[in-house]
Amino acid sequence: MGFLSGSDTGRSLDSTLPDNSHRPRCRELGIEIGIFPPGEYNAITDVAGVKVGHSTIWRGEGKLVIGEGPVRTGVTVILPHDSNTIKNPLEAASYVFNGAGTTTSLACVDEYGLLETPILLTNTLSVGTAYNALVRYIVENYIEGPDDRGWFAPVVGETYDGFLNDIHGLHVRVEHVYEAIKAASSGPVAEGAVGAGTGVRTCNFKAGIGTSSRVVKLESSEFTIGVLVQSNVPGTLVVDGVPVGKELGVVDRELRSSQQGSIMGIIATDLPLDSRQLKRLAARCTLGMARTGVSGSHGSGDFFIAFSTTYRSGTSQGQELFYRPHRIKDENFLTPAFAATADAVEEAILNSIFKAVTVVGRDGNTVSELDLEKTLEIMRKYGRIE
Amino acid sequence: MGFLSGSDTGRSLDSTLPDNSHRPRCRELGIEIGIFPPGEYNAITDVAGVKVGHSTIWRGEGKLVIGEGPVRTGVTVILPHDSNTIKNPLEAASYVFNGAGTTTSLACVDEYGLLETPILLTNTLSVGTAYNALVRYIVENYIEGPDDRGWFAPVVGETYDGFLNDIHGLHVRVEHVYEAIKAASSGPVAEGAVGAGTGVRTCNFKAGIGTSSRVVKLESSEFTIGVLVQSNVPGTLVVDGVPVGKELGVVDRELRSSQQGSIMGIIATDLPLDSRQLKRLAARCTLGMARTGVSGSHGSGDFFIAFSTTYRSGTSQGQELFYRPHRIKDENFLTPAFAATADAVEEAILNSIFKAVTVVGRDGNTVSELDLEKTLEIMRKYGRIE
Amino acid sequence: MGFLSGSDTGRSLDSTLPDNSHRPRCRELGIEIGIFPPGEYNAITDVAGVKVGHSTIWRGEGKLVIGEGPVRTGVTVILPHDSNTIKNPLEAASYVFNGAGTTTSLACVDEYGLLETPILLTNTLSVGTAYNALVRYIVENYIEGPDDRGWFAPVVGETYDGFLNDIHGLHVRVEHVYEAIKAASSGPVAEGAVGAGTGVRTCNFKAGIGTSSRVVKLESSEFTIGVLVQSNVPGTLVVDGVPVGKELGVVDRELRSSQQGSIMGIIATDLPLDSRQLKRLAARCTLGMARTGVSGSHGSGDFFIAFSTTYRSGTSQGQELFYRPHRIKDENFLTPAFAATADAVEEAILNSIFKAVTVVGRDGNTVSELDLEKTLEIMRKYGRIE
Amino acid sequence: MGFLSGSDTGRSLDSTLPDNSHRPRCRELGIEIGIFPPGEYNAITDVAGVKVGHSTIWRGEGKLVIGEGPVRTGVTVILPHDSNTIKNPLEAASYVFNGAGTTTSLACVDEYGLLETPILLTNTLSVGTAYNALVRYIVENYIEGPDDRGWFAPVVGETYDGFLNDIHGLHVRVEHVYEAIKAASSGPVAEGAVGAGTGVRTCNFKAGIGTSSRVVKLESSEFTIGVLVQSNVPGTLVVDGVPVGKELGVVDRELRSSQQGSIMGIIATDLPLDSRQLKRLAARCTLGMARTGVSGSHGSGDFFIAFSTTYRSGTSQGQELFYRPHRIKDENFLTPAFAATADAVEEAILNSIFKAVTVVGRDGNTVSELDLEKTLEIMRKYGRIE
Repeated sequence: MGFLSGSDTGRSLDSTLPDNSHRPRCRELGIEIGIFPPGEYNAITDVAGVKVGHSTIWRGEGKLVIGEGPVRTGVTVILPHDSNTIKNPLEAASYVFNGAGTTTSLACVDEYGLLETPILLTNTLSVGTAYNALVRYIVENYIEGPDDRGWFAPVVGETYDGFLNDIHGLHVRVEHVYEAIKAASSGPVAEGAVGAGTGVRTCNFKAGIGTSSRVVKLESSEFTIGVLVQSNVPGTLVVDGVPVGKELGVVDRELRSSQQGSIMGIIATDLPLDSRQLKRLAARCTLGMARTGVSGSHGSGDFFIAFSTTYRSGTSQGQELFYRPHRIKDENFLTPAFAATADAVEEAILNSIFKAVTVVGRDGNTVSELDLEKTLEIMRKYGRIE
Repeated sequence: MGFLSGSDTGRSLDSTLPDNSHRPRCRELGIEIGIFPPGEYNAITDVAGVKVGHSTIWRGEGKLVIGEGPVRTGVTVILPHDSNTIKNPLEAASYVFNGAGTTTSLACVDEYGLLETPILLTNTLSVGTAYNALVRYIVENYIEGPDDRGWFAPVVGETYDGFLNDIHGLHVRVEHVYEAIKAASSGPVAEGAVGAGTGVRTCNFKAGIGTSSRVVKLESSEFTIGVLVQSNVPGTLVVDGVPVGKELGVVDRELRSSQQGSIMGIIATDLPLDSRQLKRLAARCTLGMARTGVSGSHGSGDFFIAFSTTYRSGTSQGQELFYRPHRIKDENFLTPAFAATADAVEEAILNSIFKAVTVVGRDGNTVSELDLEKTLEIMRKYGRIE
Repeated sequence: MGFLSGSDTGRSLDSTLPDNSHRPRCRELGIEIGIFPPGEYNAITDVAGVKVGHSTIWRGEGKLVIGEGPVRTGVTVILPHDSNTIKNPLEAASYVFNGAGTTTSLACVDEYGLLETPILLTNTLSVGTAYNALVRYIVENYIEGPDDRGWFAPVVGETYDGFLNDIHGLHVRVEHVYEAIKAASSGPVAEGAVGAGTGVRTCNFKAGIGTSSRVVKLESSEFTIGVLVQSNVPGTLVVDGVPVGKELGVVDRELRSSQQGSIMGIIATDLPLDSRQLKRLAARCTLGMARTGVSGSHGSGDFFIAFSTTYRSGTSQGQELFYRPHRIKDENFLTPAFAATADAVEEAILNSIFKAVTVVGRDGNTVSELDLEKTLEIMRKYGRIE
Repeated sequence: MGFLSGSDTGRSLDSTLPDNSHRPRCRELGIEIGIFPPGEYNAITDVAGVKVGHSTIWRGEGKLVIGEGPVRTGVTVILPHDSNTIKNPLEAASYVFNGAGTTTSLACVDEYGLLETPILLTNTLSVGTAYNALVRYIVENYIEGPDDRGWFAPVVGETYDGFLNDIHGLHVRVEHVYEAIKAASSGPVAEGAVGAGTGVRTCNFKAGIGTSSRVVKLESSEFTIGVLVQSNVPGTLVVDGVPVGKELGVVDRELRSSQQGSIMGIIATDLPLDSRQLKRLAARCTLGMARTGVSGSHGSGDFFIAFSTTYRSGTSQGQELFYRPHRIKDENFLTPAFAATADAVEEAILNSIFKAVTVVGRDGNTVSELDLEKTLEIMRKYGRIE
């Protein structure tokens, strides 16, 4: 099998991960995107039932040997709920702004309007391994025998992390996926250089995983929209309208070369939306992304997946032909949800940067963290904070 | 036929149109979007061969009587070139961000990858009349007999102008389309409350037609991308990242009600791009739109059409089965073109507002112009201009 | 305005329409497509509430003078129900197999998942007039004042009939649309060379309007799927698998030249399906179409629109944010509905041919009817009927 | 890791594969679909440069133990050419008729209009392993170092073979993919129960891999279109219009239950077509599929991928910004290519059945071969052959 059949142990780490606890989220610095309030944790996990888990793979320093490392990658899982997703799928849809990448099974998500598995994020070349791991996990945990479901549509997304990571070395193992699933929890979500965000960058700053949420009130009811991004997208950073990247002299190299990047955005909501409506919600992620200064680069695969935790509830009970979901009568009511989704994506991308520390990767390649002190100065100069 | 069969004369005007010559374009105020230089006129007409014409229909004041007025509407035409578009179609594609509207023949534009007719813009309910007029124009001018082309795909787009205009009165006539075509010219383009932009608004300010262009350099060659918008889109205005709408207290009513709006964006380029590539260019319009503060409203039909003036040149000559277009080898080279398109759309939307004067329409409904003095103050406060 | 501003009176006919009462539908000849039973009339009107109306325009003989005729065209309307479609839209979706044509507002049908107007069919170049007429009809009948709905999405489809008809003469008038709407009724549907089918052909035989329906049983409930086609599609006719066209020596000229054609298919059902599911239903029209021998010609615009009469019932009552449609739990149950849709389309296309008589049109151009005696002989030879 | 971590050796076979040399292809029996002649081998390999390889995995009999077997599955690879596909990608596009499955990277194929890797086919749950193997193959063979291409878009398709195969056991290994690639050759292609077709069925007959080709003449030039299918699609078999399935009493169980199936169709051509045009070609596969009697089942993922071997030739040479492909001037010329594609797909599906022998799989589940004697009798009865 050649140089790729090395003896990775499956241990994720041989060193202490960098500590990012000193770095605040953007809202803690007074940067609040949009007019809707966030949920309790300002995270995708504010949508009841949703859990997030990471497995971070960080090994080695210095010169790259393909198959040996250094490794700066990982896996992030979004569990839409705790129970069997095959038996209890969720209404879902995808929106692809720029298809320069691979997220598996989106044709099925859109054809059936449902999400049948947890969502995995990892690096571009490890999609196959993650897919295989997700299949194994489902077979081992949900399938009751050979005549039970013989196929389902695993959703695995990716972005490229090869500037820091030995991406050609294929260091993600089935075990890492299991580890991420096992680690999944509700409540606060680790952000920055963690899990599938370990090796990525955005607007030439170190970035990674980011999350945010919004609470929208339709008539007298409150609903939550939660977003998680694996943010690896090229551009010149804009923070709440302020040209921070330009001020810092960190501008879009995409306009000159073919640096690679992408964004994966996952949107969860307890709004009872059908697949068509969720696709519309997912489309609005593009608006939030645009406001952070991205250039719409050729090579940036921009994939968004939205699911509703409430629309299909009840479908697994009873023998009736029909179920009766709650469904919005007048879709004009969705406009606030659309706006809130865009805002949450914008803030999630900012969080992915604000929470990320400098990482030195393969061949000494370094992606620097955003200097928050200087950012605050710039925000002040531009009249945004005091 | 009832109350709609009134005796409109086909004259467009019974009063002097408002003068907007005192209002500068945004770049004249020092607001420059992005890093690429504009073309000579900073207009879609900077792409060689492209012409724009308007017919403005402005009649009556006061209380609305459906079919009588007041009328605040019109027609704008984009001619891709001077000759027979049926015989010399252009490579083209569309991108629909939110399909809440009607632009005719986009399925054909995308299936064939071509634009076979001039593009018309008008109000929502007058699409049929404009379509009919465009067919007549082509039959009368291009069709050489009954066995000549028996069908083609007229492209007519629209936005809603019924807050100011007696839209139900269907005041656009075939003559107005002919008038707009006849008026089409290269060089500077009238912006603001003119043509199809007469009755529209954006972010609750009077808006209308806006245009902008960019010159991008790929290797040693320069190419031009020109944009024209009929800008009627809801949101809270952001000018180059500065929350001008919020500062002025003019915020997005879309988030509370079902006010209607939309945007039509036409992109012309002399880059030799095929239909798939043009669709990618058109998609980037969403990014520019997002940066002006739109909310992604349910009811905002956001339609973009891109065409190349150079890709099919030569197809009408000779009897060969094949022609040989120039085609970009490495699409990474398109990233600057993508970024420039987004920038030009953003600036075109701003121009549609900057150049628009206050209009009082049906039932005294008024849409106020953006106060440019105050806008400049805000821009200064936010550190954007001196 | 030139030669198109002639003095058409709006009268549809100056001669007696050809009688097709002697021609049976295909099922009357023992040709039964598929395994599901048809509804009472084997027509789209078997879906409760659906009505169909035609206006046939037939004038002149001999040499064509553009604007004078001869005229062989018309309008067909499908009313989804009797009441205000703006206030009571229906869940809907479209599927475009080959976008070589113009059906208006499909982007909105798919974005909103609804049908807000009756559906009109006419000839290709009269789409604008039909659109305008439909807008007028809605304004005059449904709009309650200037602040009522200021925009909606009229659905007008077309096929090309210029081999028989003076299509460039634009003979469809607003009055014809009103006439078709007024004529709409439930029960049996006129087929063949009538309404929008007057001038069309399929597989080089005279064709026109055709309809069929199927009743499918899901668990203990019966549901109806009704189809109407304007069938103008090129190919070599196949009848229930038998190569009738080849046997008759009437083969596909599309394979050699650029003869034009298209098909419009309208699918109505009382199955409570959402837009995504209706799109899947509409897609299956392609299967039925394929079985009649079509070649998938470059120039054949193949557009399908499906709507459900039951999914949105109740949405206009009450002030609640939500309604609660019945929704299929397990979409595997839709497979019979998919198969039945394909079968009904196949039979509707056959009916459009079986019921059509020979028509002589402009310049003496003639499209001959299918010889049913010979067809039966061929069917016997191929072991299909006794 | 539980029961899935068994000790598969990677050997594909522990028994002799069934011999199908006695079974003719449908054309050898006088069944010729359509009017265009096939290429030399009537196979996808008639397109110069295209190779096909199989790895068949066949192990065990009797009662299924998940992870142990019996195994009836495999891998099929389509190599578009012999050289580095990353450096020499091909113009490509996909068309998904029913998205009930997972073919990886189609968003990228369509966004970029290119195919960057060989195409793999396997069973549904082994997509991840095949993807991973394809990545490894490319890294080991094409990637020249860490700064060479860090991402690409591997295309892996699948259908479900779990009625015969221990699909949950995940028996495909990286080695099988390498074996299939190594085995790839031009010339005749093994059909039936081989490679990715080992465990599949169509219209309730044993089926598998099938192939066919057509030569079309445009003006004076000849071009080849080749098709390969992994045919696993539910329906009631129709052979060249004759209801063979119905006559044999083998009817579509899909209409009653949720039996699973799918079809993958790969189309290769030396026509110089761009991505949009290739998508149109791929769409016509639906027509050929429809004619074999498929029901358009809910669970049948119907995915088609088309690529051109000539359109991008020359792109890897030279430093120029542009290349100059040959491009069809008048797409009406493509109608014969569209028709030929549909015909070739129909014949390839028939070949997948005609060449497949009865297979007994897990738990004694048996899928019987089509009785060719009886089929010929039926064809005679229906007047098709003598």
